[in-house]
Amino acid sequence: MLSIEKYQKAFVTYLNDFATPKAPNSLYQPIEYILGLGGKRLRPVLTLMTTEIFDENYKKSLDAALAVEVFHNFSLIHDDIMDDAPLRRGKQTVHEKWDLNTGILSGDAMLILAYQLFENYEGDTFKALAKLFSKTAIEVCEGQQYDIDFETRTDVTIPEYLKMIEYKTAVLVGAAMKMGAIVAEASLEDQDSIYEFGKNLGIAFQLQDDYLDAFGEPKSFGKQVGGDIIENKKTYLFLKALELSNNELKNELFQLYDNSSIGNDEKVLKAKQIFNESGASQEIKNTIENYTKKAFNVLDTISVSSDKKELLKQFGTALMNRNV
Amino acid sequence: MLSIEKYQKAFVTYLNDFATPKAPNSLYQPIEYILGLGGKRLRPVLTLMTTEIFDENYKKSLDAALAVEVFHNFSLIHDDIMDDAPLRRGKQTVHEKWDLNTGILSGDAMLILAYQLFENYEGDTFKALAKLFSKTAIEVCEGQQYDIDFETRTDVTIPEYLKMIEYKTAVLVGAAMKMGAIVAEASLEDQDSIYEFGKNLGIAFQLQDDYLDAFGEPKSFGKQVGGDIIENKKTYLFLKALELSNNELKNELFQLYDNSSIGNDEKVLKAKQIFNESGASQEIKNTIENYTKKAFNVLDTISVSSDKKELLKQFGTALMNRNV
Repeated sequence: MLSIEKYQKAFVTYLNDFATPKAPNSLYQPIEYILGLGGKRLRPVLTLMTTEIFDENYKKSLDAALAVEVFHNFSLIHDDIMDDAPLRRGKQTVHEKWDLNTGILSGDAMLILAYQLFENYEGDTFKALAKLFSKTAIEVCEGQQYDIDFETRTDVTIPEYLKMIEYKTAVLVGAAMKMGAIVAEASLEDQDSIYEFGKNLGIAFQLQDDYLDAFGEPKSFGKQVGGDIIENKKTYLFLKALELSNNELKNELFQLYDNSSIGNDEKVLKAKQIFNESGASQEIKNTIENYTKKAFNVLDTISVSSDKKELLKQFGTALMNRNV
Repeated sequence: MLSIEKYQKAFVTYLNDFATPKAPNSLYQPIEYILGLGGKRLRPVLTLMTTEIFDENYKKSLDAALAVEVFHNFSLIHDDIMDDAPLRRGKQTVHEKWDLNTGILSGDAMLILAYQLFENYEGDTFKALAKLFSKTAIEVCEGQQYDIDFETRTDVTIPEYLKMIEYKTAVLVGAAMKMGAIVAEASLEDQDSIYEFGKNLGIAFQLQDDYLDAFGEPKSFGKQVGGDIIENKKTYLFLKALELSNNELKNELFQLYDNSSIGNDEKVLKAKQIFNESGASQEIKNTIENYTKKAFNVLDTISVSSDKKELLKQFGTALMNRNV
């Protein structure tokens, strides 16, 4: 297990010192609440780690790291409204604890606060950070919109699904790392390479999340195993199973997802059988492997010492093993 | 009537050429819809006008002007959700025409698009614009939150109310003008002065809106006269009437706003009587006059020719006469 505690600790200390304005309390209290819910803070940790990888004091990127975390939590608040989710990290979501208007407005304020966190960087660095941030933030919105659109579409393709998870999840991982590189004044080539590393690792991670949702160990996965199947989600496993199945198996899968009278346990069991039988389970493992390799291969082109590349690979491996 | 057609025309042409991304259509179509609903485009017009006042080609500030208009429309989409408003400029609001999620997410995307519009300005100008924009946007959120909080509070003071309208409405007018000055590279002193001019004029305008809501001519006001009274809004007139009234009159006003069985016409008539009798109507006129004077006095300190100051005064007067 890679030691990321240094960054986590530094980040959480900085986060706790982060003083949002005090008034109106009804706007800023929900912001403190969501930021205080915890989590592994992986995105900001990646920002700090990347700055150090490029030979700069990681403390210089604390504001950028915080911007990433504040943005991530903005998107959680608004997504939780859209998904009508009652819980986040085992606690009430903002719109549940307060109300819809509070969720909307506190989220809006967080998006703006994230931009403000770049203001401590001088002219060109500020612009580079804000520009990357805007591009990423727009893609995250687009990814969320695709995700919503897919719920009511029956013709979602695998490339569309991959683009959705890239935008909704992976680009922010890439951007978190690139911001660390920008603050460290790494070359533009290295900035782009570390972005690609983070993005591809992010896609691999999200696909693995799809896989573990069906085939993970209930104890270590952290979420309800089979949740995607129960909710009829069009995941990579589902879409790939459709692609690889003959008509008979395809119909069986459609009927399974269409059948509201079937028990959850039986439904999950049968779906997993089809995922295995169709070859989708093996395919997703291959695809995860490919994206992970793609991420690691990018490292070859980056101009940092090999022990630092090793560090990034270790982190990537630990992440994929759900070990950080 | 001041000729602002030149700026309006240039702005609308630029707005029509503004190409939002095309996909996902479900995210960007609502954005084109709200931006196409029309309006006088006063905020962006002020940005363009200010750039020219400070001797720069107004076309240079078209992107900043568009950012102001895109932000304004972002706030309209989210405010309309919070106010549960079915109509905007006589057409369906975004969350009515589509749904809640579309309103939230398209609004979010607009806030980000507004920041992106500054990217055509170089380093320092970019930073100055983005920084002013963030400060203003946060204040607009705070103003909206105060407005929401006031609905359920019975102890709102006049200074609190003035701060609310300053944040919710007036700072964006000031910022729109200051952005024009930033693009024209006016001195920092002049930038601040033109901000104060816009902000104070914005407060005067909003207070006059309160006044006209009760005492305006139905034909020229454009909204339902008496609407604030019917909806029990704690406007400046209401708060001032409470402040100036003896206990008897105060109780009468409270009872009037508490009485759900009274007809609207009678309620409006009686409230207006109390506003007049208490002296609140005269007070608000004095206050409007004071803020307008404050705005005009700031002009004395700005280093532009007197004919340009005259232009700004003419615009201010036309605005206050609801003549632009």
